[in-house]
Amino acid sequence: MPDEKERRVWNALNSFRIELPSWGFANTGTRFGKFLQPGAATCVQDKFADAAQVHHLTGVCPTIALHVLWDLQNGESSVAEILSLATTYGVRPGSINPNTFQDQEYKYGSLGNPDQAVRNRALDHLADSVQIAKRLESRDISLWFADGSNYPGTANIRQRKQWLAEGLRATHQKLKDKQRLLVEYKPFEPCFYHTDIADWGMSLLLARAAGERAKVLVDTGHHYAGQNIEQIVAWLLSENMLGGFHFNDRRYADDDLTIGSIDPYQVFRIFHEIAFFEFETGEEPDIAYMIDQSHNIKGKMEAMVQTVMTAQELFAKAALVDHEFLQKAQSKADVINAEECLRDAFATDVRPIIEAWRKSNGLPVNPLQALHESGYVSQISRDRAEKNSAAISSYA
Amino acid sequence: MPDEKERRVWNALNSFRIELPSWGFANTGTRFGKFLQPGAATCVQDKFADAAQVHHLTGVCPTIALHVLWDLQNGESSVAEILSLATTYGVRPGSINPNTFQDQEYKYGSLGNPDQAVRNRALDHLADSVQIAKRLESRDISLWFADGSNYPGTANIRQRKQWLAEGLRATHQKLKDKQRLLVEYKPFEPCFYHTDIADWGMSLLLARAAGERAKVLVDTGHHYAGQNIEQIVAWLLSENMLGGFHFNDRRYADDDLTIGSIDPYQVFRIFHEIAFFEFETGEEPDIAYMIDQSHNIKGKMEAMVQTVMTAQELFAKAALVDHEFLQKAQSKADVINAEECLRDAFATDVRPIIEAWRKSNGLPVNPLQALHESGYVSQISRDRAEKNSAAISSYA
Amino acid sequence: MPDEKERRVWNALNSFRIELPSWGFANTGTRFGKFLQPGAATCVQDKFADAAQVHHLTGVCPTIALHVLWDLQNGESSVAEILSLATTYGVRPGSINPNTFQDQEYKYGSLGNPDQAVRNRALDHLADSVQIAKRLESRDISLWFADGSNYPGTANIRQRKQWLAEGLRATHQKLKDKQRLLVEYKPFEPCFYHTDIADWGMSLLLARAAGERAKVLVDTGHHYAGQNIEQIVAWLLSENMLGGFHFNDRRYADDDLTIGSIDPYQVFRIFHEIAFFEFETGEEPDIAYMIDQSHNIKGKMEAMVQTVMTAQELFAKAALVDHEFLQKAQSKADVINAEECLRDAFATDVRPIIEAWRKSNGLPVNPLQALHESGYVSQISRDRAEKNSAAISSYA
Amino acid sequence: MPDEKERRVWNALNSFRIELPSWGFANTGTRFGKFLQPGAATCVQDKFADAAQVHHLTGVCPTIALHVLWDLQNGESSVAEILSLATTYGVRPGSINPNTFQDQEYKYGSLGNPDQAVRNRALDHLADSVQIAKRLESRDISLWFADGSNYPGTANIRQRKQWLAEGLRATHQKLKDKQRLLVEYKPFEPCFYHTDIADWGMSLLLARAAGERAKVLVDTGHHYAGQNIEQIVAWLLSENMLGGFHFNDRRYADDDLTIGSIDPYQVFRIFHEIAFFEFETGEEPDIAYMIDQSHNIKGKMEAMVQTVMTAQELFAKAALVDHEFLQKAQSKADVINAEECLRDAFATDVRPIIEAWRKSNGLPVNPLQALHESGYVSQISRDRAEKNSAAISSYA
Repeated sequence: MPDEKERRVWNALNSFRIELPSWGFANTGTRFGKFLQPGAATCVQDKFADAAQVHHLTGVCPTIALHVLWDLQNGESSVAEILSLATTYGVRPGSINPNTFQDQEYKYGSLGNPDQAVRNRALDHLADSVQIAKRLESRDISLWFADGSNYPGTANIRQRKQWLAEGLRATHQKLKDKQRLLVEYKPFEPCFYHTDIADWGMSLLLARAAGERAKVLVDTGHHYAGQNIEQIVAWLLSENMLGGFHFNDRRYADDDLTIGSIDPYQVFRIFHEIAFFEFETGEEPDIAYMIDQSHNIKGKMEAMVQTVMTAQELFAKAALVDHEFLQKAQSKADVINAEECLRDAFATDVRPIIEAWRKSNGLPVNPLQALHESGYVSQISRDRAEKNSAAISSYA
Repeated sequence: MPDEKERRVWNALNSFRIELPSWGFANTGTRFGKFLQPGAATCVQDKFADAAQVHHLTGVCPTIALHVLWDLQNGESSVAEILSLATTYGVRPGSINPNTFQDQEYKYGSLGNPDQAVRNRALDHLADSVQIAKRLESRDISLWFADGSNYPGTANIRQRKQWLAEGLRATHQKLKDKQRLLVEYKPFEPCFYHTDIADWGMSLLLARAAGERAKVLVDTGHHYAGQNIEQIVAWLLSENMLGGFHFNDRRYADDDLTIGSIDPYQVFRIFHEIAFFEFETGEEPDIAYMIDQSHNIKGKMEAMVQTVMTAQELFAKAALVDHEFLQKAQSKADVINAEECLRDAFATDVRPIIEAWRKSNGLPVNPLQALHESGYVSQISRDRAEKNSAAISSYA
Repeated sequence: MPDEKERRVWNALNSFRIELPSWGFANTGTRFGKFLQPGAATCVQDKFADAAQVHHLTGVCPTIALHVLWDLQNGESSVAEILSLATTYGVRPGSINPNTFQDQEYKYGSLGNPDQAVRNRALDHLADSVQIAKRLESRDISLWFADGSNYPGTANIRQRKQWLAEGLRATHQKLKDKQRLLVEYKPFEPCFYHTDIADWGMSLLLARAAGERAKVLVDTGHHYAGQNIEQIVAWLLSENMLGGFHFNDRRYADDDLTIGSIDPYQVFRIFHEIAFFEFETGEEPDIAYMIDQSHNIKGKMEAMVQTVMTAQELFAKAALVDHEFLQKAQSKADVINAEECLRDAFATDVRPIIEAWRKSNGLPVNPLQALHESGYVSQISRDRAEKNSAAISSYA
Repeated sequence: MPDEKERRVWNALNSFRIELPSWGFANTGTRFGKFLQPGAATCVQDKFADAAQVHHLTGVCPTIALHVLWDLQNGESSVAEILSLATTYGVRPGSINPNTFQDQEYKYGSLGNPDQAVRNRALDHLADSVQIAKRLESRDISLWFADGSNYPGTANIRQRKQWLAEGLRATHQKLKDKQRLLVEYKPFEPCFYHTDIADWGMSLLLARAAGERAKVLVDTGHHYAGQNIEQIVAWLLSENMLGGFHFNDRRYADDDLTIGSIDPYQVFRIFHEIAFFEFETGEEPDIAYMIDQSHNIKGKMEAMVQTVMTAQELFAKAALVDHEFLQKAQSKADVINAEECLRDAFATDVRPIIEAWRKSNGLPVNPLQALHESGYVSQISRDRAEKNSAAISSYA
């Protein structure tokens, strides 16, 4: 590694870890139905096995995000099973994801429901989730609320805001030690008129109302068309309110496509804003990088490995930006040179450097090809096929 | 009816009929799950019963759109049952909707699938659907293709265009007498990178390639943000290519909210363009008005009755536009007066006139209230509750 | 006024005042050029005369927003002239609008400019504007910053955020008594990559950083497609951060069309959220209603009168919502009835009540028609034609 | 050049030419004003000089698009001057751009204006433009119509469609030999309610109505948010209706940023669809690649050189796609490998190959740096400064 470029990329790769979502290995789909994959995970053990395989091939995915309702079906009683799986597979539990949108009771919302009994039920589930996270030694509880309404006039927007603030504050009080609440926002879907936490501003205000260990969770797919996500990231950094990311890509709505598949330059710019913040402040913000995608067409395992490789690649490119030069160009409003500084980093083909880094770390040079050669997908497709042919759902 | 306004509204109401979708009475939802309604229809008989009730209350819904896969589960063999239900309930079969998106085989498309066997399967289903339509004496076969791709490079866009054109041509050849093919477009969902029939221009070209009885089907929710739907309607009218509508409303994507719930002025303008076309040309275009919504929060029956009432109201307002005056103002570029001409019609409260029309036709003055008073929803909620508590689906 | 509906509308009309923008009477256009109107105002006296005429016809526009650069060309020295015009024409100075975007120095921003000299220049202009406002007894200083960048990497987003915060804080310190700073946001244009104050969340954080008399200014045209403006209004109300509105309508971007011309239901919902807040809290928030439109096709005077009438009409409709009923329906998640409560108010034709109110206040029943009959537009078209034929600008 | 990759890139570069817009060298801006550049071109001679300099540095810009109103101010009488400049500077006249939007007469439209006198005026200007093009031996006449309306009801959409069709047909009849009409579309701006030619479907229908040498002109900035431009390109190719491009980039509306500055992967995909079409059909479609940007912040010359380099780079990347492999992967619905095929090409750093190509063609290896070193910008900034300090326009 004689080269400055290589050194920057290696440092970046050494520091970069990304969390796998357990639900990314299971069959998902759209409201029009699911296309079942024979190798899709059907239980939490499958999910750990799959995550372990991805980590084995890439070396940068030591944790798996867990979904309380789907992965810990007996709540706290499932903790032992999870810990055992973690030991077996060598992948630690990552962020804990409560679910306050699936049960029939949540038709009109969870923490924002006009019925106090439902609000309490949601609160209890959140408290359980914090407790589960403690037992699993998970730091982050990731909160996404589907709360909102479909038609004008049908929900009291201000009242629901207050209920959400109270619920988050109560949940925050349950936190212990270094635990954090990550508050996600989303402009729409499944609610189509108003969503109680619709944008980063709403997340930030609610997180501040909740307590100092509540931060904002940025899902890259949860923005209006044209919105500048990297600017939001820069603002959250400057406000010390950026908690983490749910990564995915999209063209239109919350399409949950694999990261960088539609607009790789944007992901690069997000990583750049973080690296630039670190350069300028000397701080290392505590950011959870997590994948949240819905691979309803791509093979689950292939999609996940491809995603990790793409994230690494774009993170590595961002590490190439010459911060001193950029700072100087910006301070002189030297538009062309400042822009070229970013463009040069993005245009650089970092794949050879990443391959060298992998080799030096005893990892397969091309994880995607290694996955193919491993026969893993064929194996799980045979093993799990029967279980996967069962549950077909349709639109109506 | 001494009054010119009243006369125009009555004429409009006398001519206006709108078709109910069988699937609008069944449980639907989002990809995050369905909120089950105890009174939701669980079989085609329920759907006929519900449609009949809506027609009974409103008097303007004599037909029900049928979905081949869900409503004629034995294909052509189910025709007799449907005809019998039609007789029993006094509601005729309306448009016939094939389904080439739900089966696992269609993962990579139907008519656009690279696998010829799958394309043939889709073609066969379309041929069956035409045959079913004949037997049911249904005029229109409504075609919505979910075909497309999720990632750049994964589909041959031009090749798929050609396959779609060939498939539509072949299907068109099966038509008999006055039957029509209605070709729907949609920018995205369930495909998120490219959709084979993404906009009205693609529908129009494919419909023309199919044959002269193929027309474009406009789903009001299937447009880009900001797109001027009434202009598309005006163009399709002038090209003699407007076949019909799927009505619903939305804020963001294809939200499938009830018509006019978000932007009633836009629906009014669509109806206005049609009425203005009739005034200027003396022609009466053959347009199928159909509802296509997904009432996953609103009560199924209430939503449908409310929808019909709203459609009537906006159609009636459009009938109030003074076409002579408008034409003159437009021809002089008299911007303010031309606009005020539309605004005046929209601002007029036509509800009293509609109520009078209902009374004179022996219909309940307020169908929504009549529905409530009829006890119908309570009744079906009791009768169907058990069957509806079964099939809960979740995201992952 | 025996009727409860009429009483509500009268109360609403008695309380509703809306401010006219001086620049709404002058020739404006798009980047492709201006279509000149012979009667357009060419000096501040013309603007006062036009505003006075609108107030004379409608009775609800006692103030005119002034633009420091265009209306007080000698800065504080122009104050005497303005005060004299105010006396002559009976229209008071309203909000004061600094301009930190037009001068060549502001090419790379004003308060966010990397050059300290430019930042100081902007600060000085803001201080002058506050001083002018004091002298004119204007309460509000409306701040719109065009600051931002056109290309990735060319601006230091966090650094600029800090400069903006400092500049606003310094400006806030100049305020006296009841003066307020209104901080506007806009997603894009004239900057196309990033805008320093891009959304309500950024406005709110900067306003809070500035001081307690800084509030958020909502321009209805400055939102992403699909964004729920009334929800933002409700949140700002609940945070005590809503300072005022710039009203206009649009389909796509910041089109600056006349209010309610594209989506009247949305304006109604905004007014509703305010009225509902007042009902629930008993508070009367101090909200400046201001028009900010660019009538480049409509006649200036006609557009303004039409705008005021439309705003009144939608404000009056919002006053018809039955808050007790709505509150109850919302608390029971009675979706249909809650929505119908809003729909009923919107569908009501309030024009006859407004006409009665006008008559009782000695105002023309139809201000638009009265404008026409007054001959005012013909008169100013003759008087000002020559001055208006001068300054044609083109794209390149 | 032993390498297949290099060979493909060299072939691509040998074939790639891109046309410079004369107006790209002049001062432009937004409706809020223009930031003047001292070196901006102020006359057609300046524009030729600047274009020649760009061609000198890059070697791939032999033509300059001309704007009839701005560059041939005496109409056909200016032809001699243009031909002389072409000889002097070694840059040929490219596409000819009529202007039917700037004059005051066009307030309510040109070919779609309800006043026949204005329609005739526009027709005459189009005929003059065809004649000028003949005299200049320019093949393409590029037509962009700003026609449309700002408010519902104010324009007769169908009638205007017919007038546009007639006008285009009449203009087409004036064409000679290989001349072509290119019909551009744009969803909005400067019209904000409806634009007469709003999308590719409208362009295509009007071009077909005009005649066989009328084709569609795709401006990359003229699309709805999220619209798949490369799909439109593929459809136009398959319909033999793609005439050319106006290249620029954007985040929101028609931002006219430099190509590839916001979403380079999209430009790559557009070039890919064209290359793939050529591979599959063996045809070489006659496509005019033209730049159409508004550099109101970037230096005019720097922006243009940077643009040409970026276009080359993305065109070269597209040439790297392995078509045989891709075709096979697509035909098997091998999603991951098909996508990786594109991603691999895009990730490749083609800059070293391009530099070698430049060297071998006697061109500066880095044209942007060569521009800087040439002192050209400093020179024109000194020479033209005075003329450029004149015409400042403001918003109101």
